[in-house]
Order: sequence, then C-alpha cells, then structure tokens
Amino acid sequence: MQVWRVNTRQKNDTIEACPQSWERLGGRGLVARILLDEVKPDCDALGKYNKLILAPGLLVGHKLSSCDRISFGGKSPLTGGVKEANAGGITALNLVSLGIKALILEDLPEDDKWFILHISKSGVRFESADDLIGLGVYQSTEILLNRYGKHVSLALIGPCGERQYLAAGIMNLDKDQNPSRIAARGGLGALMGSKKIKAMVIDAQQGEKPPILDAERYKQAQKTFTQALKDHPQTKIYHDYGTNAMPGMSDGFGGMPTRNFSAGHFEGLEKIRGETMREMLIERDGEGKPSHACMPGCIIQCSNVYADENGKTIVSPLEYETVGLLGANLGIDDLDTIARLNWECNDLGLDTIDTGAALGVAAEAGLLKFGDGKRALELIHEIRQNTILGRVLGNGAAIAGKVLGVTHVPVVKGQAMSAYEPRAIKGTGVTYATSPQGADHTAGLTIRAKVNHLDPSIQANISRNAQINMAGYDSLGACIFAGNGFASAPQTIKELITARYGWEVSDNFLEVLGKETIRLEKEFNRRAGFTSAHDRIPEWMTREPLPPNQSVFDVPERDLDNIFEDLIQKDE
Amino acid sequence: MQVWRVNTRQKNDTIEACPQSWERLGGRGLVARILLDEVKPDCDALGKYNKLILAPGLLVGHKLSSCDRISFGGKSPLTGGVKEANAGGITALNLVSLGIKALILEDLPEDDKWFILHISKSGVRFESADDLIGLGVYQSTEILLNRYGKHVSLALIGPCGERQYLAAGIMNLDKDQNPSRIAARGGLGALMGSKKIKAMVIDAQQGEKPPILDAERYKQAQKTFTQALKDHPQTKIYHDYGTNAMPGMSDGFGGMPTRNFSAGHFEGLEKIRGETMREMLIERDGEGKPSHACMPGCIIQCSNVYADENGKTIVSPLEYETVGLLGANLGIDDLDTIARLNWECNDLGLDTIDTGAALGVAAEAGLLKFGDGKRALELIHEIRQNTILGRVLGNGAAIAGKVLGVTHVPVVKGQAMSAYEPRAIKGTGVTYATSPQGADHTAGLTIRAKVNHLDPSIQANISRNAQINMAGYDSLGACIFAGNGFASAPQTIKELITARYGWEVSDNFLEVLGKETIRLEKEFNRRAGFTSAHDRIPEWMTREPLPPNQSVFDVPERDLDNIFEDLIQKDE
Repeated sequence: MQVWRVNTRQKNDTIEACPQSWERLGGRGLVARILLDEVKPDCDALGKYNKLILAPGLLVGHKLSSCDRISFGGKSPLTGGVKEANAGGITALNLVSLGIKALILEDLPEDDKWFILHISKSGVRFESADDLIGLGVYQSTEILLNRYGKHVSLALIGPCGERQYLAAGIMNLDKDQNPSRIAARGGLGALMGSKKIKAMVIDAQQGEKPPILDAERYKQAQKTFTQALKDHPQTKIYHDYGTNAMPGMSDGFGGMPTRNFSAGHFEGLEKIRGETMREMLIERDGEGKPSHACMPGCIIQCSNVYADENGKTIVSPLEYETVGLLGANLGIDDLDTIARLNWECNDLGLDTIDTGAALGVAAEAGLLKFGDGKRALELIHEIRQNTILGRVLGNGAAIAGKVLGVTHVPVVKGQAMSAYEPRAIKGTGVTYATSPQGADHTAGLTIRAKVNHLDPSIQANISRNAQINMAGYDSLGACIFAGNGFASAPQTIKELITARYGWEVSDNFLEVLGKETIRLEKEFNRRAGFTSAHDRIPEWMTREPLPPNQSVFDVPERDLDNIFEDLIQKDE
Repeated sequence: MQVWRVNTRQKNDTIEACPQSWERLGGRGLVARILLDEVKPDCDALGKYNKLILAPGLLVGHKLSSCDRISFGGKSPLTGGVKEANAGGITALNLVSLGIKALILEDLPEDDKWFILHISKSGVRFESADDLIGLGVYQSTEILLNRYGKHVSLALIGPCGERQYLAAGIMNLDKDQNPSRIAARGGLGALMGSKKIKAMVIDAQQGEKPPILDAERYKQAQKTFTQALKDHPQTKIYHDYGTNAMPGMSDGFGGMPTRNFSAGHFEGLEKIRGETMREMLIERDGEGKPSHACMPGCIIQCSNVYADENGKTIVSPLEYETVGLLGANLGIDDLDTIARLNWECNDLGLDTIDTGAALGVAAEAGLLKFGDGKRALELIHEIRQNTILGRVLGNGAAIAGKVLGVTHVPVVKGQAMSAYEPRAIKGTGVTYATSPQGADHTAGLTIRAKVNHLDPSIQANISRNAQINMAGYDSLGACIFAGNGFASAPQTIKELITARYGWEVSDNFLEVLGKETIRLEKEFNRRAGFTSAHDRIPEWMTREPLPPNQSVFDVPERDLDNIFEDLIQKDE
C-alpha cells in the first residue's frame, strides 16, 4: 500500500511507500498520525499548511459486511482541532483497489481555477472543473458519471464546500451511484473547497483486491463475523428501520432534541419514527425502499430510499440524525418535508446536523416558526442563494448563534450536537464534551448501554469505553453497526487483521487501536490550543432543566477532565 | 474604599469592605484579581456567572493630569479571555468620590426589563430604562442628563450593547457631558447589555475627594510629575494634534493599515493626518477644537472636537485609531466622512477599531469598494437597523471574516488589531500576539522605541517592557501619555502612592504592578483554555509580504512563547 500525495498548487503528485510508523494504522487513526506528523496544529485550517487526507480503514477492500468505510481528515475548519469524518459508499474500496493507503491533498492554488482530480492506476490527473462550479452535488454527479463512466467512484463537494462554509461536508457515491454518503462533520468540504478541488474521480478498473496472506484463516474469520452480525438482534432492527429506528428510544429516554434543544420529548414522534416511515414506504410502493445497502456486501442495509406519495424518490437515505435535527429540532413532524430538506442539504453538500442545529438557533432568533417546514425550506434556499443570512446558517450553529445573539446553541468545540440530548443521555454528553472531534455521537454513543442515563456518576467510564471502541472501529473502516458483530465475536478482529496482513496483533487490538487514535488526536488538539476548558457542555445545559426529566447536564467536571488522563501527555 | 456589589437579577446591592488582597491593586490589575477570585474562567461570557467590573485606577481621585481613568472588566464576550478596557472622562472620579474601589455587577435578570443603575451616597437604585431602549448613546445621554442633572457622570451602552454585539463598548461622559469616552475593546458593552443595564448614573454630589495621608509629600510629587509631563516633547505634539499625530509616523514606518491590512502606506495620508486636521479645524473655526481635555486637570488635552466646514461639531474626539481603521483601512481619505462614521459608531456604542476592521473585511468580500465612504455609512446603517448583515458586522472582524469567507482577517484571539501593522511595527505585533487582552495597541505600543521595527530578533523584549509598563499604568488609572511624565520622573509614582495611601512600595512599583497584573491575566486565560497556540499573529501575515517594506511577521514563535515565561505558572 502506498501514500499518494497531490500538490494542489503545483498540480502534480508523488507516490511514496508507506512509512513504517503508519503501516498498522488506517482510517481515523491514520488521519490523526498524519496530521500530527505533517500539519502544524496551529495553522489556518483553510490555509496552505492544512492537508486533506483520505484514509481507508484497515479492513477495507474485501466487502466484509459494513467494513469498507473511508475516513476523510484534516485540521477542522469548524472546530480548529483534529478532524476525521467517515462515510460509507464505495470511495474506500476503490482507493484500496488502487493500492492507496492514504491520499493527501496538500498546499493551496494561487489562482481561482477549479479542478477535478482523476485518480487511477495511471496516477493523478488534474482536469478542469469549470463546468461544474456552482452546480449541486446531484447534477455534478450526473455530469461526472456521464463523462467518466458509471464504474468510477466520486468524492465531491457542493456549492457550500466551494464557498468554504464551515458546515460543508464531502459527498460520496453509494454502490448505486447515488452521491448520498457524506463525510459530514467539521467542515471538511470547506477544506476540500479551499484546495479548489470540486471532485475526486476514482477509477479502479485497473485496480485489484488487496492481497490476503492467509486466505483460509481470513475466510473462517469472515464467516464467523458475518454470522455474529446476522445473529445480532439489532441487525434486523437497523435493516428494517434504518438509523431511524432511534426516535422511539431517544424520545423514550427524554433525549430527543426538540425545538432547538428546549425539550426531550417531541409530540410529533409517531409521525417521524422509523416504524412509521417503513410502513409508509411499503404502502407508497414505487421507488422507496425501507432497506438499502450503501456498500456492496453489507448485510445490515440500514440505508433506505425515501419516496413521496407518488412513489418517486425524494432522497436516499433519510437518517435518524437528519430526522432529529431537521425534524424534531425544528418542530417539524412531516417526513416528506424533512426528506426534502435533506435533499437540499445533500445537493448543497451540507452537514444536516450542523445545518439543522443552525436552523434551530435561527428559529429561536425568530427567523423561523418551529414547525414551519415551508419556511425551513426558504432558509435553506437562502443558503443556496449565498445571501448573507444563508452564509450565516451555512457556517453552522456556532456562528449562527454568535451572529443572531442566541444563548441556546448546542455545540461543543464549535460543532453541533447530534440527535441525543446530553441532559438526558448523559454518557453521550460526556462524549460530546470530551471527544477530540467536538460534539459527535459517532465518537461514542452510549444510549444502548443498559444503565440509568440520568445518573451523572457513572457516565464517564461508559463514554470512555464507547469512545475507544469507536475510534478503533473508525480506524478499521467498520461502521458503528458492524461493531455489533465484532462485539459478539471479538476474536475475529485479530483474525481478520492477522490473516490479511500477517501482523501479530494482540487480542485487544481494537482497544489498542482506539486508544492510540485518541492519544494522537488529543496530542494534536493540545498543540492546536485545546485544554480541558474546551471539554465542556454549554453552560446553559448545566443550568436549564430539560423536560420531561427536568434534568441538567451534571457529570462532574473532574470526570470529564480525567477521562483520558492515562492516554495523554506521553512522549511525542 | 469599598466594594459595591449589584445583583442584576435580585435588583439589590451590598456594600463590603475591600478584601486585603485587593487593596493595593486598582484598575486593570484589580479587574484581573477579581476575575480570578470570582469568575469561573470557562463560564459563558454572556451568562449569569460573568461579572461586569468597574475599577478606578489607584491614582484616581485628585485630578492628577491624565490619571483619572476607569477600568471596565469581565470575561470578554469577544475573546473569551480576560478583558479590561479603560476610558477617560469622569466616571472614575465620581466612583472614587463615592468611596468605591470596585463596582461589581453580578448575575443576569430572568426577564427582559431594562434598568438604569443610579449610584450615589444613598446607595444603588434600579430605575426603569423602558424609555431609553433602542435609543442611541447621544439621545440617551441628553435624556439622562435632563433627568438626573448635569452634575452626574454616565456609563452607558448604545443599541449594539443592548443587542449584545461582540464589538459593543461602554460610553462614558467626558468633563463636558459628551458621551465620547469609550471602554471600547472586547465586547464589554455586550456584557453590560446581558445584564440589562442600559446606563449607570453616578451622582457624586454627596461624595468627597479620597483622603491623602501626607498632603505635602503628595503635592510635591504631583508638582514634579506635572512639570515632567509638561516638559516632555510629546505632550505638545499630542496637545496639538491629538492621537492623530500618529499617521505620519505609522505610515513612515510602512505600518499604516490600508485597505484591510493589504498595504502599509496610504496614498491619502496627507489628507487625514493630524497636522492637516488641526489646520482644518482652526481654519473652519466654529465649534471645532484641535485640543480638548477629556478629564478635568489634564494638561495634555489630546482630545478634540471635530467640526464640519460650517463649524458645526460632527464628533468629539476624532482619534488616530478611528482614522486608521475607518479611514485608511477602508481606503477613505476624507476626514469629514471618517468623523461621521465615528459619530455613528459612538451613537451605536461600537468599538471603531473592531467595526472598522469588520468593514475592511466586508470590503474584501466585495460588500464595499475601498474609498467609498457613502457605502461605508450605509453598512453602518445596516448595523443600526439590526439587519443580518448589520449583525455580522457589529459582531466584529473575526465573525465577519468567518461569515463572509475572508482569509485576511486582522485579529488575535478574535479581537481586531489597532492601526499599527504588525508586519511593519513588529514589536507591537508581539504585543498583539501575546497580550492576554487580544490584539490591542494600548497593551504595549512599541512604535516610539528607537529601534529597527523590522528586525524580528529584538522585538520581544521591547514588547514585554511596554506591556508591563502599560499594565502598570492601566492599574494606576494613568493614560498612556501620562506615562511620558512618569518615565521622566519615575520616582513620583512611589511618592504619590505612598503619600496618598501610606503604603511602603518599592521603587519599581509600576513594574511590580504591571507584572502582577499580567500574571493574573495569564492565569485567568490559562484556566479559560488559552495556550501559546493562541499567542499568534494570523498565519497570512507570516506569509504575505506587506508593501512597501515587503516584510512579513517573522518574530520567532519561541520569543512569543517565552515572553512572560517568568511570570506564569506560579502557584495560585
């Protein structure tokens, strides 16, 4: 596996052997290692010294169920700290087929010309993107697939990434050529935009599957893992309802972010929950699909295709975080409207979480009446039109809060919280507070832990374990739900890695990988100027009780400060 | 001297003896001590745990020339760190006459009712401010003086402070009842606004001059100091030209911020420099005055009254920083226009530095053509109208840069630079980078040091000394120009303090005070989450050469990191 470097100023590339110290890292862990080795932590995130990194996870390449995720990374334009955002789809598979361990985009162009990066066995080509600038993600995808063929994969930005909005992400094709899988968080779309790359086209036709050293051992482990995943009760739940299986549980714990995080129960719950969505899609028939795989080989198939009452696709997929942030958080209980808001965000290349949170803040400022879906669409239109208000909203909830003078802004390190209220699911609140990534449920969701989520005294350890596991999975390229299979058959991780790479790894390789990843991330953040003072839930959430539990976020600060004490401040 | 506490939620107050550990501090040093003792450094700056502190300097009370300044302080809504902003005028004199060592506004109201704080020998009264809300500073002043009499002093906010804009300051009356002296920097007007106090009315009629223990010794020291100040060559310069004596010098060093800090020489220099202004004001006759004292007893009289061609006052005073930021920085070379922009900012209660810098950023984003004064006034009108664009600009340059997607944003710790280009006056750049206050020339201006301002190797020590001296002066209540007198007769500081208070202080009391102040401030910032990574000049200024010197900011980072190494990390 090789490291491909692309200089966006000089418009050239180099292909290097992978340094030894990077070899046993992948995905999120490799992003952190590269950032620490090569990017000045206090640099301007949109300046010439930041780098955009693509790193497939360690397990990527063989269509192991739910294990072909791509990590994007860089210094976050949104948080100013370390950033990794991963996505499903086929980007990682194609990169690995080309033998790419990491693709690193460096430097900044000195003019305003935009390019497409064409990546294949022949190397990297810069091709003009003039005809794509200003176009939405869907139309750009159509043009690119017509130009380069249906076999390529794409990673591209929308108008919001071009404009370097801080809530812009990077869209990736799913296995059906739909640009639906977003590396959403932390403004990496803005980072890609700063380098004037509209799209990466990855043509792996001449590529090949990565070698497996011990095919038989690998096959056995794969079989065990797949069976364990199949047998796990949650696999069927996510298959049937997608991530939108969550509203019932979140709301049941009083943790559904409602009307700009002012309540934990949403009256419109029944209308937006996955169970309702599934029935509706089945009833509507047509193009809608309650279950759909974003990656080839995935047996969970938590994705979906959401169709309107005529059976025509509105968006694919419609996920829980979007239903939470663009739905309940805006008081909107109509799935069709939420799906349309989602399509707009996808087309613009925007993180629906930070955008939904920004709209919630705008609602509190009086720019939107909670529940008014038409107005919400108008506000998204402001973003599309690049008006000043649109720019305020497209830069995410933290900026929107500052400009609009709103106190109730649900962010940590400048990044919006996902659809789990930290005052009700306090372990996830600990994750929001202490993850080097900023507020992000995927960094360590605790809602399925069988504990009292309101008890502040027990959350730190639950969050810590979740964070370490997730950092490990994010480095393997495994999706959060693949973790259910690995949790039932933990030895398969070692087996798969050893069979494929021939490495002698410990039984707790997942934990080792997770701890190392977080250690590297914390160290990058430390050098970037982060301290424990930044590992805090917003003050108003520690004071204002959340109905219906009337709970505040009251996990002791010392628990937050000590959570990774054993990992940090080691030699570097 | 006593500590008066006002609870803005309970609408009551308490009067306490001054704690011993606060006694020998005043002004900026006392602000830092109180913040460290009483305000949680990671609190929400606009939340209930922040406090707005008024602390007169140690020398305030006897109309010693240029030594009656008032320090306002709190955790900065703009920078998130320690903040002190001081002003001339008569606020400090009146507070000291009432025996007030520190006035501390605490907590937050739970409703939207606005109040005036009436402060007198009878204590503190809350009176409704309903009729003042939304009114500009000038009209509010007129109403308040009619209501409470011409003898009171005022500290009040404009519409921008009410709206908690991050560039809002606190306006104070000068000795002629003109609300012209602004505690400008760091958003303390927003802090006052968060506590729903529109104005503080200080009635010192029943007050009395503070005691002097050894009147004869004091008189002698005062005489020596006054003579030294009179004899200093700069006293006449500032008397004649005000702070606007500076353009020639700044521009001469290639350090005049021009067109959003893209050049260090302004072609319109001759039209805006103080020499021209003085001639114009004398020629125009009428209400204009090239020299004017903001405080009773000031012999420098660096203030002025700026009149239009009919001799009618436009604004008082027109100062160098405003000429720099709202003039050269916007490519505007017309003093009348700059004066009108200044009046608007004063009336809105806005820092002209951060507002000018925000407009410069807006110009770079294409919202204003450099040199177009009419359009600049329109943009200020957007602020007055509280439009979204107005809110973006009124929140200062850092927010404007984020929203408008501009790279060239001249801020440190979120606060705009003053009118000294750090690439040309590198010592002042060191001050911008390392002052706990954020970018601020008053924290340690180095332009008068007789050194090569372009030599990066020698700037740290020059800045350090300037910063320590200024922190000392800010704690004494002495204005920057009073320092010229003290520099010629340094022993008078000890004499004045000992004669007045009876304290045995060391010969280097100014330095002791300055060091202690910075130590406290650095410690507050450390706990608030600041590290050396925040002590940096924006990256683009380290890469993009500034004409005409073609210099970059290249003071070594280790010099920035070590500048206060001996002061910090002591026991707390």
